[in-house]
Amino acid sequence: MDASEFRASAREMIDIVTDYLENIRERPVFPDVTPGYLRQMLPPRAPDEGETWDEVKNDLERVIMSGVNHWQSPNFYAYFPTGNSYPSMLGSMLTDGISTLCFSWNSCPVGTELEVTMMNWLADMIGLPDAFHFHPGGKGGGALQGSASEATLIALLSARNVTLLNLKEKDPALTTGQIIDRLVAYTSEEGHSSVQRAALYGLVEMRILPVDDKGALRGPVLKAAIEKDIGAGLVPFFVCATIGSTGTCASDDLSELGPICNQFDIWLHVDAAYAGSACICPEFRYLLNGIQHVTSFNFDPHKWLRVNFECSAMWVKDTSLISDGHQVSPVYLKDKKGNNNNIPEFRHWQVPLGRRFRSLKVWFVLRMFGVKKLQDLIRKDVALAKLFEECVKKDERFEMVREVTLGLASFRLKGDNDVNERLVAKINLDRRIHLVPSKIKETFFLRFAICAVDAQASDVTYAWGVIQELADAITPVVKGH
Amino acid sequence: MDASEFRASAREMIDIVTDYLENIRERPVFPDVTPGYLRQMLPPRAPDEGETWDEVKNDLERVIMSGVNHWQSPNFYAYFPTGNSYPSMLGSMLTDGISTLCFSWNSCPVGTELEVTMMNWLADMIGLPDAFHFHPGGKGGGALQGSASEATLIALLSARNVTLLNLKEKDPALTTGQIIDRLVAYTSEEGHSSVQRAALYGLVEMRILPVDDKGALRGPVLKAAIEKDIGAGLVPFFVCATIGSTGTCASDDLSELGPICNQFDIWLHVDAAYAGSACICPEFRYLLNGIQHVTSFNFDPHKWLRVNFECSAMWVKDTSLISDGHQVSPVYLKDKKGNNNNIPEFRHWQVPLGRRFRSLKVWFVLRMFGVKKLQDLIRKDVALAKLFEECVKKDERFEMVREVTLGLASFRLKGDNDVNERLVAKINLDRRIHLVPSKIKETFFLRFAICAVDAQASDVTYAWGVIQELADAITPVVKGH
Repeated sequence: MDASEFRASAREMIDIVTDYLENIRERPVFPDVTPGYLRQMLPPRAPDEGETWDEVKNDLERVIMSGVNHWQSPNFYAYFPTGNSYPSMLGSMLTDGISTLCFSWNSCPVGTELEVTMMNWLADMIGLPDAFHFHPGGKGGGALQGSASEATLIALLSARNVTLLNLKEKDPALTTGQIIDRLVAYTSEEGHSSVQRAALYGLVEMRILPVDDKGALRGPVLKAAIEKDIGAGLVPFFVCATIGSTGTCASDDLSELGPICNQFDIWLHVDAAYAGSACICPEFRYLLNGIQHVTSFNFDPHKWLRVNFECSAMWVKDTSLISDGHQVSPVYLKDKKGNNNNIPEFRHWQVPLGRRFRSLKVWFVLRMFGVKKLQDLIRKDVALAKLFEECVKKDERFEMVREVTLGLASFRLKGDNDVNERLVAKINLDRRIHLVPSKIKETFFLRFAICAVDAQASDVTYAWGVIQELADAITPVVKGH
Repeated sequence: MDASEFRASAREMIDIVTDYLENIRERPVFPDVTPGYLRQMLPPRAPDEGETWDEVKNDLERVIMSGVNHWQSPNFYAYFPTGNSYPSMLGSMLTDGISTLCFSWNSCPVGTELEVTMMNWLADMIGLPDAFHFHPGGKGGGALQGSASEATLIALLSARNVTLLNLKEKDPALTTGQIIDRLVAYTSEEGHSSVQRAALYGLVEMRILPVDDKGALRGPVLKAAIEKDIGAGLVPFFVCATIGSTGTCASDDLSELGPICNQFDIWLHVDAAYAGSACICPEFRYLLNGIQHVTSFNFDPHKWLRVNFECSAMWVKDTSLISDGHQVSPVYLKDKKGNNNNIPEFRHWQVPLGRRFRSLKVWFVLRMFGVKKLQDLIRKDVALAKLFEECVKKDERFEMVREVTLGLASFRLKGDNDVNERLVAKINLDRRIHLVPSKIKETFFLRFAICAVDAQASDVTYAWGVIQELADAITPVVKGH
């Protein structure tokens, strides 16, 4: 494929993508396929001779689109949103075109430089204290990770490293294993699965602590757990607090947990993967009360800030806690220009060595939307979730699991789990809308997350109509109500 | 930005990207900037109001291009190639447009299904034994990771997990820490920095073993190290062999290391990040001799197979060794349809939960290039590296560090390290070409890696001319030679 063929086919691809997004309502949100279906549709081997763009293009509907779960559809209410927008796509096209890696300043100066500035822009937008901003010669700063899971893992491994060094300094006779057997991390039962997975990778005990009625891990619960573990000769070293849980968008109170972590010299990481984006609106910034006590903070612009996956923003008050722990620097990566306090070396911040030029799409999105428009979109989604909540409250067959705080409504049919399991199965079999269930303290419920960038009130009332209709077969409306 | 604005601006972006790639020779390969330069060029905060496409576009040269290290330039010979091609960009545009996540079959059926088929296509192309291919109900299979670093980490953590379970089964009184203190991993001194980093993350001892004259870790060296450790009461559990080292493209002999690992029940992972792509040519497949003894294997299509970053292919003979070790399955991810032997659940294979629809760009590349064309490109690059080797050998001021096997030539000025350090500094200050140095056993040398997809013989002779010219100031040519 030469340049002129690319220009022509890429123009067609732009139309394919734009038509797809503009007409996405016409497609059933979830595809009508069963596991293994694609094997029969594709040859067992790659072709020896190259095929034309037309041949590939003609397969797009048949092979690809027929099996897509349409996350960008206004009828998609599952999981959390995954970012997409025209400005982000423009930035991504440029990233692919340049195709440079950004693991050190030397490997692509603007890759590091733009990321530093974009992390400061984002920190400013969500109201992170200055201690998290990058300043030349300063301690704070942020970097883009691939996902919140990676950010949590890096925070936990760094905390582990700091603790190992401290304990070995105090008692050089201690082995790594002796210390590992004593380390304890904490998160709440509403914490994300990736937090528990980070503990499995990190080989440390993780206590899953109970939450209160609103889904928050409370200070006394945490403090009691820490003191009990210390009493048993263990070493609490890491807490992962949640702002905006996956199940119900519940949040821990950082102003309560923070001082406790500080008191016991414990690394406090905040997983605000979804909810962090809302903090660009001043009215939601109360979620970050107590942020000054936090060691590291993470949210995903690729969820609710219209930036395409992957783009997860992570900050630390003292970046050396992350970058010093896992450095391995062969000669081909030595970087005299970059190795100074003036500019960070992001390869020491993450698991992979390679780094895509991800800050470019952030720059496109923040410039072309502007902060006010991004705020409008967050507020629109929160209003839609509240609209859905009103619908639920008006139908007395249903109940809310928790009050709506942001763009997620967690609801259920009153009664046992079984009717709710039947309802979610019906909804997803029906394929007009798509959502996923969750479970808290043995209560099974449905999640309704506003995901599509152009979801409207009419979409929400349509979805509610579908849910009511399908519920009728399970729990008929009592006449007169 | 609405759909029609996107159609128009995306067309312009296609022209910007295509013009960039077609005229890339005109740009100095490395930018003329110093650390911190960008801070002055950008506002300290994101704009409140959205800006137009024209405003962003007008900044592209000034802000972005002025700071790019042009990895796609034929004058770029640093690190290893990072994949790029027009078909890959088309696939990537579609991935961004659809913007679906592929962490489970349910989250996007075609995301998992196409990945399964693409992994089989790739396995077939490089001649991996059938045991690594995915078959319904079978044990083998592969998945796309973000990078070779992640693949190595996942292999090491999975091996650690298997060993922990085995030892605890034999002696339930053993603690995790007691086992960790006894685990030993091995790699060679030519292994990638990410292998050592995986051991730091995994909290296990890693022995860096010496290589022979050709850069290979030999069987007797490995066996002696293992036996010595076992004799000391330790538990060897993981070996990372290298096919195509970063320094000199050296390779370990799997037919020698494999049986030793099998004898001692040690997980043998192969990091063929760069060199794996060459195995699509039968004449380079000798590199995989002994592959039947291997536990897991990894190479990066995003390096030398024209697929854009990130795209790292990893296979295991028994996928349950990876997927069973770190499962955490909350209700919102439970997936009745997908949880069977008919189709894998890739979220159990990797650190992040989120997964981009990466197989799409692989499908575009393999179909639109075809295997033969991709083979031609590999062979072209190997021939160019050999051409460079001939140039080096003709100038008696220089010497090759090792014989060229694939697309990397490692060379140096005869004499001490100092003259070579001066040469590489001169080359990168000159900015007509760009390369990076390396060091083996205290010998400092220069790496010349063929990177650009359309690098030609004339580019290589031009680069050699630049190197000779700059060497003249350090080591003048003796008249008469």
